[in-house]
Amino acid sequence: MSLLPAQIQKTIEEFSKLPGIGPKSAERLTFHLLRSSKASPEALGAALQKLKNELLYCKTCQMVTTMEECEVCRDGSRDRHMVLVVENPLDVVAFEKTSYKGLYHVLHGVLSPIDGMGPEQLKLKELIERAKTGDIQEVILAMNPDIEGEATANYLRGKLSDLVPKITRLAHGLPMGADIEFADQGTLREALAGRRSL
Amino acid sequence: MSLLPAQIQKTIEEFSKLPGIGPKSAERLTFHLLRSSKASPEALGAALQKLKNELLYCKTCQMVTTMEECEVCRDGSRDRHMVLVVENPLDVVAFEKTSYKGLYHVLHGVLSPIDGMGPEQLKLKELIERAKTGDIQEVILAMNPDIEGEATANYLRGKLSDLVPKITRLAHGLPMGADIEFADQGTLREALAGRRSL
Repeated sequence: MSLLPAQIQKTIEEFSKLPGIGPKSAERLTFHLLRSSKASPEALGAALQKLKNELLYCKTCQMVTTMEECEVCRDGSRDRHMVLVVENPLDVVAFEKTSYKGLYHVLHGVLSPIDGMGPEQLKLKELIERAKTGDIQEVILAMNPDIEGEATANYLRGKLSDLVPKITRLAHGLPMGADIEFADQGTLREALAGRRSL
Repeated sequence: MSLLPAQIQKTIEEFSKLPGIGPKSAERLTFHLLRSSKASPEALGAALQKLKNELLYCKTCQMVTTMEECEVCRDGSRDRHMVLVVENPLDVVAFEKTSYKGLYHVLHGVLSPIDGMGPEQLKLKELIERAKTGDIQEVILAMNPDIEGEATANYLRGKLSDLVPKITRLAHGLPMGADIEFADQGTLREALAGRRSL
């Protein structure tokens, strides 16, 4: 690889550190940037260098923001008694496309001892502090339905049960548009257990 | 999406311009860079901003380099009568892992009218100039075996036939380790046509 100029090697190396990008993809991306008229290495480079500039966590919900408090928390029309707890900021973006009108709390991860993610690495303390104010009537736990997500939800239920009157989790079942034939066992079990009368 | 700070949106947007990276992957990469201890947006950003710095094309073979002439062309031990013509710089890196000891010529693309790649967009003129010096005994055409590669090879054969004594192309056939059962029709046809006596 010493044939390639140092800056090309360095870019390939840095791209390779990203998830899902192996050495071959990293090479392809690098040479694409050198040739492309649409994508430019300077524009992506400048964006990346500014990525962490003035980036803050909302003092209330821990969402990424450039202000002390995020847009949702500053919005007076939201239901301040309801808090939807999510793993990461993109989950907030996803729920904002629904008609949800309460507040959020972003944990920035899930409990995963194998990845070194314990309660201290997450924004759990901040959620418990919010619950202690007594303003929250309902906490909706919206972790991903996987092992780490379930473990985090269980942990939170234990910590919050004395502080919040109502703790709920998202419904599990068949996604809209799904084909029952291809649904997995766990999903069908949840869909049966959570059946509703018509 | 206006929920996300501008620098995050900008980074997602720039990542989305890369081949094989859709909006969802771009989001994932961006948030990975915000959290990861291994990959850093500053390091990738700095590498990208320097990517085109002092990057030159070798005056002889058009390989990317930071000097006037690349390492291979400056190496006195190489066979200067043999030129392997490739589509892009990574092909040179690949052939350098073999025992090939001649020189190269990098076209930086292939003829592809649909993508706006005509003879003027490629380093073809430079190859023809090299051939005109009379120093080249053999040109090996090593384009990828696809429609654009074959068209480029045909075009070059026409342009070079009066200037170079010998024009060859890479052998096509079964790759090492392949399973005949799963080989495609075109590969099997080439493998049969190019059979060698034992």
